[in-house]
Order: sequence, then C-alpha cells, then structure tokens
Amino acid sequence: MLDHKLQEKSKSSHCSVIEGKPEVWKVEPSTTAKNCKNFIRDIVDNLDLKPNPEKPVIALSIVSDGDPTVYGNLKPSEETIQAVINIIEEGCCNGYAPSVGYENAREAVSEYLSHDGVDVSPRDVILCSGCSSSIEHCITALADGSKNHNILIPRPGFPIYRTLAESIGVSVRYYNLLPENNWEVDLLHLESQIDQNTSAIVLNNPSNPCGSVFSEEHLQDILEIAYRRRVPVIADEIYEQLVFPGEKFVSAASLNSHVPILVCGGLAKRFLVPGWRLGWIVVHDEVGAFEHIRKALVCLSQRTIGSNTLIQGALPGILRNTPQNFHDELIETLLRNAQVSYEGLQQAKGLSPFMPQGTMYMIVEIQMRKFPMFQSGLEFAQKMMEEESVFCLPGEANVENRKREEHSAKKTTGFCESTVKDSKMLIYNCFAIPGFMRIVLTIPEDLLREACVRIAEFCNRHYAN
Amino acid sequence: MLDHKLQEKSKSSHCSVIEGKPEVWKVEPSTTAKNCKNFIRDIVDNLDLKPNPEKPVIALSIVSDGDPTVYGNLKPSEETIQAVINIIEEGCCNGYAPSVGYENAREAVSEYLSHDGVDVSPRDVILCSGCSSSIEHCITALADGSKNHNILIPRPGFPIYRTLAESIGVSVRYYNLLPENNWEVDLLHLESQIDQNTSAIVLNNPSNPCGSVFSEEHLQDILEIAYRRRVPVIADEIYEQLVFPGEKFVSAASLNSHVPILVCGGLAKRFLVPGWRLGWIVVHDEVGAFEHIRKALVCLSQRTIGSNTLIQGALPGILRNTPQNFHDELIETLLRNAQVSYEGLQQAKGLSPFMPQGTMYMIVEIQMRKFPMFQSGLEFAQKMMEEESVFCLPGEANVENRKREEHSAKKTTGFCESTVKDSKMLIYNCFAIPGFMRIVLTIPEDLLREACVRIAEFCNRHYAN
Ligand SMILES: Cc1ncc(COP(=O)(O)O)c(C=O)c1O
Ligand SMILES: Cc1ncc(COP(=O)(O)O)c(C=O)c1O
Repeated sequence: MLDHKLQEKSKSSHCSVIEGKPEVWKVEPSTTAKNCKNFIRDIVDNLDLKPNPEKPVIALSIVSDGDPTVYGNLKPSEETIQAVINIIEEGCCNGYAPSVGYENAREAVSEYLSHDGVDVSPRDVILCSGCSSSIEHCITALADGSKNHNILIPRPGFPIYRTLAESIGVSVRYYNLLPENNWEVDLLHLESQIDQNTSAIVLNNPSNPCGSVFSEEHLQDILEIAYRRRVPVIADEIYEQLVFPGEKFVSAASLNSHVPILVCGGLAKRFLVPGWRLGWIVVHDEVGAFEHIRKALVCLSQRTIGSNTLIQGALPGILRNTPQNFHDELIETLLRNAQVSYEGLQQAKGLSPFMPQGTMYMIVEIQMRKFPMFQSGLEFAQKMMEEESVFCLPGEANVENRKREEHSAKKTTGFCESTVKDSKMLIYNCFAIPGFMRIVLTIPEDLLREACVRIAEFCNRHYAN
Repeated sequence: MLDHKLQEKSKSSHCSVIEGKPEVWKVEPSTTAKNCKNFIRDIVDNLDLKPNPEKPVIALSIVSDGDPTVYGNLKPSEETIQAVINIIEEGCCNGYAPSVGYENAREAVSEYLSHDGVDVSPRDVILCSGCSSSIEHCITALADGSKNHNILIPRPGFPIYRTLAESIGVSVRYYNLLPENNWEVDLLHLESQIDQNTSAIVLNNPSNPCGSVFSEEHLQDILEIAYRRRVPVIADEIYEQLVFPGEKFVSAASLNSHVPILVCGGLAKRFLVPGWRLGWIVVHDEVGAFEHIRKALVCLSQRTIGSNTLIQGALPGILRNTPQNFHDELIETLLRNAQVSYEGLQQAKGLSPFMPQGTMYMIVEIQMRKFPMFQSGLEFAQKMMEEESVFCLPGEANVENRKREEHSAKKTTGFCESTVKDSKMLIYNCFAIPGFMRIVLTIPEDLLREACVRIAEFCNRHYAN
C-alpha cells in the first residue's frame, strides 16, 4: 500500500529528490543544530587514539571536561550522599518543582554564597540542570542571534561558551589571557573587542584551563571596562573556592561595580558530583538593569522545567552540612597533585608547566619549535598517546574531514558525536590556544607521577636541540 | 571612582540613554527570551485566584501541568525508590555520563520499549532532562526559525510545543482534533495545514488534555499523510501505556509507516516521578532519512550534558523491576477517578464531560451559551474558584496586561513568571480550545467527589435556561 508511494514526488521542501532517480528522503537539521558543536567531545570522540598496548592508559584529559570522579579517588562527602538518601526516603520531592527551583533550595544557595561582601537573596537564585544550562540560559537571555550580537569569551577558555553562542547564531570574540601575567585578562585587548553589538562578557574565574585565580584588583579593572562600556557580565564561577592556600577567591558579585552580573555556579566541582546536574544562576543587579533579564531567565527555565528534584531537595543539606575538612582535603589533594605534576614536568625538555593557583587543572606550554616533527599540539598529544599511553587535551586541533568520517563509521555509540560542516578542514579549537595542553589534577597521585615520568620520557626522546 | 561615570554616555547599544537625563542602564532580553512563554504557568501564576475562604481549595489543575504526586496519594513504586538508593550507595554514578546517556540506561530503555512490533536498539536512544527537553531537542533539530519553518501541533494540545517552537522563531499551525470522534485527528484539516515549510508534525498519543487513545488504524491514516507529504513526525508518547482496560496503546513507531519518527517519552507519568527529569528520544528511521538528525540530536545533547546520572544509573532497575501490579493499580485508580468524575459531572447542568480512554485527564465542555454571565472559560474557572474553591484549567484565556502587572508585583517568588509582550491584551491559549476545561484525575477519590459536587452546585446555580 505504501510502496507505490516511494516513487511519488515529494511535495515537501525537506526532501531531496533527484530527478529521474528513485527518491531519497533525507531530513536536514536546522541551522541551530548544524552550528552546535562541542569542541572537546568532538576531539575526544573522533580522534584516532591508539595507546601503546604495553602501557596502561592514563587519561589526563577526561571526556566531557574535568570529571573529578573518574578514578574513584575523589568522592562526594558523606553528608552529600546522606542528604539525597534522606530526600528519597522522605518521598517529598518526586513531583514538579517550580521551574526556578524549590524555595528552600534557592534559599540554601543564597545563604551559601552570601559571604565576603556578597549578598544574595533567594529571589535572585534560579536553579538549572547543571552549570552548562545556567550558562546556556544566560547567553540565550542576553545575546540575540537575529540582531548580530556577539559575546566576549576568554582565550584560552572553556569551549562550551562558543558552542552555546554559535548554535543560536551569536558570534564569539576572544579576549586574550596573558600567560606571563598569571593568565590575567589583557585589558586593552578586552576593551578593543567590545563593539555596539557586544551583549555580554563571559568571565571564568577561577579558570579552566589556566588554573588561575583573579585578584580583587584585577577583577575591579575588568568590571570597570564592563561598566564604562555598559556590557553586562556572565561570571562563570563553577570553580569558586577551589583555590590553593595563599590565594583568595573573589566573586565578581562582591565588588559593587555597578555592573549587572549573572553569576553561574553549581555542585559539579567543589562538591564532586558533576553528573547530578545541579547548577545555578544568581542575578546581581545593583543598578536595576536586569529587570527584564530576570523575567527572561524565568521564562527560559520554564521551557524544560528545571533540574532534578531529589538533588534540589537535598541541596540545603549538601550546602549546609558538608564539613569544612571535606573542602580542605580536596584542596590539599589538588595542591599536592599540582606540585607533583609541576615538579614532574620540570624533567620534560621543551615543556613549560604553569603552577595553578586553584581549580583542577594545570596548563602546560609545549615549545613546538623544539618538536618540529609534530605539526600541532594535537599531533603531539596523539603521538604521546601512541607511545606512552598518556593523553592530554591539546589547546587546539585540526582534524581532516576524511579521517573524521572514517572514525565516525567505526563508532559503537551509534552516533557520530559531531557534525561535519565544511568541505576540507575543520578547526576544532578546544581551548582556542595552540601550543598548549591541559592536564587534570584529579587523578590518583601515583598515576599522576607515572604519567609525568612518561611525558618526560616522550619529550626528552623527541626534543630537537 | 565609579560615580562620575554614571553621567557618561553609553557606548553600547544595549543601554538606553535619554539625552539630558541621568542615564538608565536597562538590558533588553533577546528575541528568543522574549518569545519564550509557558502558557499554563502563565495562567496559573498570574491569575487572580481568590478561593472561597470557607471552603478548602481543591486544585483540579496543577501547576506545571499534570503533576500526579501533589496530593501524596500516588507514589512511585518501592522498586523505583530502591533502584535510586542502590545507585547512590554504590557511588558509581556521580560523574559525567556520555551526553546521550549511560550505555546500560539506553539499553534498558530500548528493552522497555521493544514490544508489540516496536524494535528499538540502544543506539537509537538519547536520554534527556525530562520529556520537555526531549521535545525541545526534537523541535530544535528539525525546525529552523531562520528558514521560516513551521510545525503542526494538535488543538487542543499541550502548550509546551508552542512555547518551544515560537521561542526559536518557528511558527506553529494547529490541526484540529474532533471531539465528536473521540478526539481523533481531523485528517483533512491536518493535511491542509502542511506546506513547503512544515518541518514536523507533533502527535500526542495518548493525549493531554483529551484523554484519548488513537487506534492503530487512525495512527496509520495520520502517518500516511506524513509519508505522502514527506513530513517527519515527533510522537510525544509520555502517556504510553496509561490506557484503560479495553483500550490498547499503539506506538507510532510500531507501524512500519516509512515515516521517520522521533518518539519522546520518559519516567514522569507512568512511573510517577516527574521531578526526576528523565526523558528520552527514540530515533525510528526505517527509510534512512534521519542520518543527519541523529547527529544533530547528539550535538544538541552535548550543549548541556544530559540528565541526572543517579536516575540514569537507576533506570535499568526502575524499568525492569517495577512490577506489573504497580502499573495495574495506577490504571485502576485513574479509571475509578475518571468514572467518579464522569458521573459526578453528569449532575452539573451545562457541562459535557468526555470519558477518557487513558491518561490522567478528563476534558469537559462548558456550554458557554448557558452561562452568559461569563465571557470566557477563564472567567468561568475564576468564578468557580471564588465561590467553590475548585480550580480547573480553562482551555483558553485572555488576561489584561494591567491586571497581570499588578499581580506580578505581588508575587513572592521574586520573579514575575511571564513576559509582557504587547500593549493591551494577551491571549494565553493554554490548550488552545475555548469553551472547555480540563480536570486532573490524580487526586484522592474523596476530594474528586467533593470537587464534582461543588462544580455541579456552581453550574446549577449559574445555568441560564
Ligand atoms: C569553566 C566551566 N564552566 C562550566 C562547566 C560546566 O559545569 P556543569 O557540569 O555543572 O555543567 C565546566 C565543566 O567542566 C567548566 O569547566
Ligand atoms: C503531553 C505532554 N508531553 C510532555 C510533558 C512533559 O513531561 P516532562 O515532565 O518529562 O518534561 C507533559 C507534562 O505534563 C505532557 O503532558
């Protein structure tokens, strides 16, 4: 009954019909879907990674970016686990929550964040499904693809900002971070990137991938530019408080800058539960500029009705009961691992590690001219995997289409985790910084030591004097 | 230091400066944010609902639509609860999952849905943060606002389809459901609504708000149109299996229609845990039309990295271990409540209840000409609340702006849960059907009886012969 229709000519524009041939029904994705790319997942999933079969793999780059839980050495606090169990057993939190979150959960976030000059009211808090969703909502609320808006994002920086912006037709402009200044913002460059169509500056402090922590003075300087040019700020503070002794985390919201700021954060990093997808947006609006943006964020939260209610229900317990020594121990572990890596990589010719001030990452410069056999940081990383079974996420990568398609055909997930866009070459920009790589500091210390030894061997073997 | 700058003229286009006056910094939301409205929440949150203080309120309309858990009479199965507790205690599922979901969770969904002629492979399953997100991703992947696309949605129907489409610039066209034919699709009308720019037909079976369940023949007729016109289908089957004895749920995916279909579903309704935000998309692609759409859906899932991992981890346990008698008891309860309401409302002059074939809802026609004192279904519902403290969600509502703004000022959530769009009147279309209202069947039977008595009293009091 249906078969004769296979020959029929399509009436819909969404079907490609080749005259004279039997029709092929191909549905084309929307522009948004085509423009949506996750740069890290793209690299990790489509790369030709052949580890050395004689050495066990050590991944210093973790799929989907900075998952502290992969090796099982870092666990959430007992209090965190217990808070969720209590909520499940109570049976109180299985229904729909308000799309911005339960009142008491928003209250707990406001209390948690109100210190050191920050004053948050529960009504300023919107809960989201992970900090990625928080950032998505902030970018979507502020930036308008149909009006040619752009947002400013850090280079190097977390690639999801670009993914989220470009998929809704918003372009990104990079502002540089300065390696020689502890990865502070190049203020002149930042200001030069602002134009009439700039609708937000994204700050990420503490920084992935730099491991840097901004001083109060530096933040003040950045916010003065934002104020002078009247550009709102999205402050991605997902690594809040993850700073090493001697450093101090300063929230952009603490500075009375007169700049309207959306602070994004969540449980993923400091509480070691990234899979739980609990993020937040905090609206800071001293000057009353965000009245409509507040409403917009609420409306956006109603599209998909917020985040998991068990975690929301547990949030007061998680935030209030997790003891200080849990946080202290995490910092200790990260610091020790940073020191181990820093010292270990000193032994590697041609690498310059940057000692982080916080976060879970260390950024490492590869003196590429000392490794002329590798065309890119990606090739360096691939070769290191082949020989030493150690993989670090490179700062930038070019992957040829042909190769990518071959791999996607092999994949077992059933989906090629990327869209192929243009004809010949694709630039996957990851952190958008060539000649660098990032290692994660969350894996067990002995593995980290071993990884550094192998990296050093690899570098010393290939280093060209 | 900053204060003198308050007088400075803005350089940014996002700041409204009135010449000669001190500057006011107002940030305007994007077009997407402005176009994003949740019609049910808008009505419920902004309405002037003054219950009769002498009667306890019975809400036959529940915020955020069909939350079965509100009265505590319907609880998830023991097995569901235990599955989550096991996963938390194991500590296995705190990290990031692949953005499309854990392999074993996808496998469990494929197994759960593979019966009665449906054959799902794990690679066809993408997990999302609730069925709302599933629908969001499907619409976003298929429909392109920048190309003037439209999608077809049922009238009456679930308003989130419109919310999701319009916020990304995709227009909606309604196709009628026929009350006199058990709310089957008006096939001629459906076909007449398709044009060159139609990128998807959204089907909702079983239906919210109609409570109807399509026969295999009827589904076949609908899919023949989709096939003939080469329009892909989004099948919202969130109420799958929630059908009363004698009815049979037929998935659109079971019919070998040659139509590429995205089936959306999740745990919210049949497993009674809407707050857990676990939804899925299943790609059915007999004819190979969805190759690029698959990739697009994966990319979209990477934007915000999927749904809560505890629930994903528990999913195999939830889907496999929930016993049949849990499902049977839920159906029994819903059926009994449907019968109670149907009989109860027979006593109300001027109302015509439709006996549902499944779901958690009953749709009721209000013979508006018999109630000339009420201008709309909304006014009817408001007045019933005032006099009888019973609230049902009306099929359509007009609310004046002024009133809405007054209310938003009063709100305690801190956010006005809506955007005010144009100057004088707003059409809140809810289910897009005037002269009807919907009641929920999930509340305790005694309350439902009491509600029906009060509704009947209200109607009989106001009925004009
Ligand atoms: C800078 C930065 N922002 C946001 C996120 C996303 O956090 P979430 O897992 O809560 O979505 C990450 C994750 O690695 C990150 O590094
Ligand atoms: C027809 C329909 N589709 C989808 C949904 C959304 O389901 P979820 O809570 O999983 O987002 C609902 C919720 O009421 C619904 O009625």
